Amino acid sequence: MNEPEAGASPETSSTGDVSAPGGLSRRGLLGLAIGGGVAGLAVGAGAGLAGGVALGRARAAEDAHSAYEFFGAHQAGITTPVQDHLHFASFDMMPRSDRDDLISLLQDWSYAASRMSQGLEVSASGAVGGPAEAPPDDTGEALGLPAAGLTITFGFGPGLFENEDGDRYGIAAQRPAGLERLPAFLGDDLDPQASHGDLCIQACADDPQVAVHAIRNLSRIAFGRARLRWSQLGFGKTSRTTAAQATPRNLFGFKDGTANILADDTEALADHVWVSEQDEPAWLAGGSYLVARKIAMLIETWDRVRLSEQDAIIGRDKGEGAPLSGGDEFTAPDFHGKAIDANSHVSLAHPEQNDGVRILRRGYNYVDGNNELGRLDAGLFFLSYQRDPAQFISLQRRLSTDLMNEYIRHVGSGIWAVPRGATPGSYVGAQLFA
Amino acid sequence: MNEPEAGASPETSSTGDVSAPGGLSRRGLLGLAIGGGVAGLAVGAGAGLAGGVALGRARAAEDAHSAYEFFGAHQAGITTPVQDHLHFASFDMMPRSDRDDLISLLQDWSYAASRMSQGLEVSASGAVGGPAEAPPDDTGEALGLPAAGLTITFGFGPGLFENEDGDRYGIAAQRPAGLERLPAFLGDDLDPQASHGDLCIQACADDPQVAVHAIRNLSRIAFGRARLRWSQLGFGKTSRTTAAQATPRNLFGFKDGTANILADDTEALADHVWVSEQDEPAWLAGGSYLVARKIAMLIETWDRVRLSEQDAIIGRDKGEGAPLSGGDEFTAPDFHGKAIDANSHVSLAHPEQNDGVRILRRGYNYVDGNNELGRLDAGLFFLSYQRDPAQFISLQRRLSTDLMNEYIRHVGSGIWAVPRGATPGSYVGAQLFA
Repeated sequence: MNEPEAGASPETSSTGDVSAPGGLSRRGLLGLAIGGGVAGLAVGAGAGLAGGVALGRARAAEDAHSAYEFFGAHQAGITTPVQDHLHFASFDMMPRSDRDDLISLLQDWSYAASRMSQGLEVSASGAVGGPAEAPPDDTGEALGLPAAGLTITFGFGPGLFENEDGDRYGIAAQRPAGLERLPAFLGDDLDPQASHGDLCIQACADDPQVAVHAIRNLSRIAFGRARLRWSQLGFGKTSRTTAAQATPRNLFGFKDGTANILADDTEALADHVWVSEQDEPAWLAGGSYLVARKIAMLIETWDRVRLSEQDAIIGRDKGEGAPLSGGDEFTAPDFHGKAIDANSHVSLAHPEQNDGVRILRRGYNYVDGNNELGRLDAGLFFLSYQRDPAQFISLQRRLSTDLMNEYIRHVGSGIWAVPRGATPGSYVGAQLFA
Repeated sequence: MNEPEAGASPETSSTGDVSAPGGLSRRGLLGLAIGGGVAGLAVGAGAGLAGGVALGRARAAEDAHSAYEFFGAHQAGITTPVQDHLHFASFDMMPRSDRDDLISLLQDWSYAASRMSQGLEVSASGAVGGPAEAPPDDTGEALGLPAAGLTITFGFGPGLFENEDGDRYGIAAQRPAGLERLPAFLGDDLDPQASHGDLCIQACADDPQVAVHAIRNLSRIAFGRARLRWSQLGFGKTSRTTAAQATPRNLFGFKDGTANILADDTEALADHVWVSEQDEPAWLAGGSYLVARKIAMLIETWDRVRLSEQDAIIGRDKGEGAPLSGGDEFTAPDFHGKAIDANSHVSLAHPEQNDGVRILRRGYNYVDGNNELGRLDAGLFFLSYQRDPAQFISLQRRLSTDLMNEYIRHVGSGIWAVPRGATPGSYVGAQLFA
């Protein structure tokens, strides 16, 4: 069998056994082997990698309903019913990496992601099928686990297009005008170790071990080309994207995401989430913009606030999530009366109060242990998808007078352009390099 | 309705509506209200707390099979089928706390734990049923979630019995002889912020939000009496305690816990896990000793080791978990031939090589993000239960020549005596204060 050419686009490859979506590139294989003193064996391992998905050693993907297709018009993981667990990772490209490195990385990531989302190992030889004299291609901790609804969603940060080193990859001219670091907002207290990044990967799954396995193996495949900058685990989704999902609760104990855009609301998705053919730049059509905000919650302080005050701050009642103007969770709030404070969270964030601006939220709760005072280091890892970064910016500016601000701190921030989904035989972001 | 007396044992309480296992003590209520300027209202809130479990506002405990009884001969969470998620917390008693504080804390914790393990809020008024002018008793983020198999297991550390401040609670004479900080082991690199503690709580559940809710609310109830020292989240259990559970994999990609003691092996539990009536001290009969070790894995280094070497280090094959001497996962290893290295992990840890010493393992994988080099901060949060701390110590000493040591660091350590289960109407540890 032949080995895939380094840097070759699977779209144009003529080696029949490097079937779509391609195998790992030579660089990808090298990343797996390097450091163990057996780099030379990677070529040997390559032979075992060329079988593509169909011949792969399957993990136990017994539950077909929990496997989502990686390829499609849009990337999976945006309107996909929100899974229970998140592992989010931000990467920076390595100094001196070039355009071929970036393309081969995206090809390798797409190949591995397409396999993992079907419950397969990252390559055909996987965790135990390769030569005993080489490090395994797959780290193995997801062997025997089903796909668990894994989705892997890739994004491109502003720095990928141009940074202090210039136009490293020849794509500066294609940077979307709105793709730049978010402006400073009132109350920002950003940690650079939880902010920004040239690339991001959002891995969501119903089993945290599957999400962690995905990020770990994609980090490993990136060796020499990109490096993990920061990562965040999350659980207990704080949003829903289908009507069948109950509205979950955030760590303030309130239902969150009642008014979210749902996956079957095609019109709202077209209006508010997907970049259209008419928008600029053309390569991003069918994609979206992802904003991540790590929002620390001052849990212990919040917990000492009386119930009526908590309700007033949110503008909804804690038990049912009904607006304080009456009705049930799904009753439209009445902002004209006095029941809802004008600076309550719902009042400031509601589309009716924001010229109809809406976003698709997909956040998770997080707990990163505790600080030395014994307080939980916890909060909301906010994720939203929108057609234009201006949507998030205008909403966040409105929230500057939010009564809730006394109990939160924004400690992390990032923005990425999320390309359309890859077509079989191609890779995520191919349009950018066409 | 009457308010429960502060510090009164529910066992001896004569106030009829402070039904077993009692309501929250005045101290417990105070902890919930204090700091919000409404401490005086706690008395009012107390009236709403006195109904006990039966009158509680139920969370949606629709899945009866996922609720474990808190009361019983042994504490839940030891032989209980290992749940998917862990939140473990270590506490120190506050300076100047006294014996009544400790007793009332254990009563309050037992009361709240008995409710939460049935899918109920921490008190009858819970998250939204109390007076609007007081902070809610329950933080609310588990409202609407089922019990999710929650178990809450309490332990007493060496420092609870005696520390530099002396015999604070009048129990020094009852300290089990073996309950002392573990000796230093080769390769220890312990972080005090992940080690030791006067008290510990192991919360396990199939939903991380339920486990986090439990630790958060128990920490809150402890206000003024004990303070969170450190905590750890875990996922992807690395052990099984019933034959029906498949052997899970650790972050080295290997099956872990193949030879664990199972819940139905009554004889092995009696021999190796439960403190017997004949052991000292008598108050601990029916209990056990819990050892926690936070073991960081050098993931990236391990991932560069060739497959044959990984197999040799563990002494089993990565795919099936079969001993290198042959057979399948459950075939007894043959340590007499040359197939299994004498310093492999299985060779050093196997009961056959340790005069039959066995422990019940209940560990979890953890990922705490990544360090500034982009390496995952990940590993195994090892938990084991044993009849005598000497079991763990002898096993760990044997592991000093483990080939695996090159790839791990012990960064956290703790030991606690785990009392027998509480009887309805009493509380965990009551025997110690009889």
